Amino acid sequence: MYNQKMYGLGAVRSGIRELFEYGLRQAAIVGKENVFDFSLGNPSIPSPPQVNEAIADIVMNEDTLQVHGYTSAPGYDGVRKAVADNLNARFGTKVKPQNLFFTCGAAPGLISVLKALIADSDSEIVAIAPFFPEYRPFTEANGGKLVVVPPDMENFQINFAALEEALSPNTQAIIVNSPNNPSGVVYTRETLEKLAALLTRKGGEYGHPIYLIADEPYRELVYGGVEVPFIPTIYKNTIVCYSWSKSLSLPGERIGYVYVPEDAEDSSAIYCAVAGAARASGHVCPPSLIQRAVARCVEQMPDLAAYDENRTLLYNELSRMGYTMAKPDGAFYLFIQAPGGDSDAFSNKAKEHNLLVVPGTSFGCKEYFRICYCVSNDMIRRSLPVFETLIHEYK
Amino acid sequence: MYNQKMYGLGAVRSGIRELFEYGLRQAAIVGKENVFDFSLGNPSIPSPPQVNEAIADIVMNEDTLQVHGYTSAPGYDGVRKAVADNLNARFGTKVKPQNLFFTCGAAPGLISVLKALIADSDSEIVAIAPFFPEYRPFTEANGGKLVVVPPDMENFQINFAALEEALSPNTQAIIVNSPNNPSGVVYTRETLEKLAALLTRKGGEYGHPIYLIADEPYRELVYGGVEVPFIPTIYKNTIVCYSWSKSLSLPGERIGYVYVPEDAEDSSAIYCAVAGAARASGHVCPPSLIQRAVARCVEQMPDLAAYDENRTLLYNELSRMGYTMAKPDGAFYLFIQAPGGDSDAFSNKAKEHNLLVVPGTSFGCKEYFRICYCVSNDMIRRSLPVFETLIHEYK
Repeated sequence: MYNQKMYGLGAVRSGIRELFEYGLRQAAIVGKENVFDFSLGNPSIPSPPQVNEAIADIVMNEDTLQVHGYTSAPGYDGVRKAVADNLNARFGTKVKPQNLFFTCGAAPGLISVLKALIADSDSEIVAIAPFFPEYRPFTEANGGKLVVVPPDMENFQINFAALEEALSPNTQAIIVNSPNNPSGVVYTRETLEKLAALLTRKGGEYGHPIYLIADEPYRELVYGGVEVPFIPTIYKNTIVCYSWSKSLSLPGERIGYVYVPEDAEDSSAIYCAVAGAARASGHVCPPSLIQRAVARCVEQMPDLAAYDENRTLLYNELSRMGYTMAKPDGAFYLFIQAPGGDSDAFSNKAKEHNLLVVPGTSFGCKEYFRICYCVSNDMIRRSLPVFETLIHEYK
Repeated sequence: MYNQKMYGLGAVRSGIRELFEYGLRQAAIVGKENVFDFSLGNPSIPSPPQVNEAIADIVMNEDTLQVHGYTSAPGYDGVRKAVADNLNARFGTKVKPQNLFFTCGAAPGLISVLKALIADSDSEIVAIAPFFPEYRPFTEANGGKLVVVPPDMENFQINFAALEEALSPNTQAIIVNSPNNPSGVVYTRETLEKLAALLTRKGGEYGHPIYLIADEPYRELVYGGVEVPFIPTIYKNTIVCYSWSKSLSLPGERIGYVYVPEDAEDSSAIYCAVAGAARASGHVCPPSLIQRAVARCVEQMPDLAAYDENRTLLYNELSRMGYTMAKPDGAFYLFIQAPGGDSDAFSNKAKEHNLLVVPGTSFGCKEYFRICYCVSNDMIRRSLPVFETLIHEYK
């Protein structure tokens, strides 16, 4: 006498969470310093100080009723304008405040877009492996079908032959996540242009647009000056889902937005459906204080030095040991070929050494495992002998 | 090629919002001081100062990574324990932290409970008129049917004969909102005991529990020492949805919780389904900073003097003029019989005088209109001659 689907979603925890909790239990037994937990993508560099300064200033000096009051559902004017101006300055776009719908983070933004685009039970949403595992429940719990494109095992860009095969007249949207979780790969401009051409051609064939959902929480996390193209400037039917969880290290505060470009097909209807979907999920407005803080901090960029140091250390050391991995230009993940070829088996073996890495199976790529390098540099250094021991066991 | 239901939910704005925006436009024409806007239930007393002090202290003195980091999905341990302790001290209950699931406000809490309880397309959710209009889209957009019980026009408690008629083997839950929006009425212990007896009897007949969803954002807003019984102590299959939007004047911050009592039937499965439903709606965690602030402020009660003064002034003056209304013991609403008997017509006539009141039609009670007295006392005083003129037009 209750909803079995919702029960299932609540009862089965994500494998990543399970691993993380195992680490906590294990730390109590063998000591925290002897557990090497690379499981969770929780930012390890603090928010820029401007964020907390803004928060303190706002609560102490602005009108309390305004600060904590309802804002309009898509966000208050100040933050929408600040973000539109910032995007326009950076990408030469013509984003208007009314094209932005602020959300309680990327997850509800993504779900509102999916609910808006899943027209009926035949609707298909395409994800490119390796992909964030929550795309599956987000799609399926909202009435759509998730179609997975196998990975491009060479460089983790897009396997276009496989993608073309995955498209059908029922394809409503494709989700693109670059910089990518779990691979850390950034899609090149060339990849995105090829993608745009394919979607335009197939959309023309089907007589309806194929929307591209750009899930961009890692946009600002790139190293070595690599370009992250702003996809709406390459493909007009792009809907962007952004979040400040990683870029301002505010994952708990739940603040992000959906951007529906004005020249996307059916732009205003899609925007309206996104707003309706948000309403159906209980969205009233995004948290109001943090909206105001973010409005003051849109120019802030994360200090990535610590992540970059970790990335370089791990990439160099693990490569030296003989591990092979995707080129990690962005986010804070390394996606590494599992010695022996089976990431579940490798993850289990690593667990015996109190080294926690996430098998790629739930990301749609079981040959690789993921490690998050948003951890302390010290822990990484202490973990290196374990990585070395492990690969030797496979040699 | 997009979801028509979601489009519909986004395209049709609530009548209350329309009225509010009309007021803003009208103020620009005739002057702010000449518009008497009683449309929106936006708190007009500021949060207790402890809230802002807690926020400033937390961001300045606690570990930033912790403060803004992900908490566990149901909320961080500290706030769950603080609320459980507070409920237990006030109501003699045995609430445990793990029976509480924190949400981004009451709306997503309510929707998660509805999604958890709507087992299939036959599932019925009962609402008692007058009721918060969003109950309809919240239920229908999540696959259930809303069954409305006509109001008890005498004192706005419950019309039990009509309620019994509305129950069926498909009834999964009944939503109770006391103190009530829009009537301001508080259900008496006697009413709730009678309700518990009826639900127990009918649940027994049907062979499955009928859950009572207690939507309680106005719990702390009562006047004259009136009792608001804690419904789980009267009916065990009660699921509470709470929010601090009104009690701490934090409507924009989106913080509330769902409480599933341990002795409710299928308690742990229901809790699990609520968590799954939240996940399917994009819930990751409630806003983290405000969780910490609320944990420090659970003992704070709102300073209701201003609301009480408004309530007394309006009740006395409007009664003197000849208006008849429900006894307003709680919340910040008066529900008043429309002169002429048609609240839509009355609301339109009032609009001609720049007096904005909400017709009861969307609340399931078209003979009454609602006014919110969370406004300035000064505006109330200036509006009284308009109320007087209006009733004379009907005499």
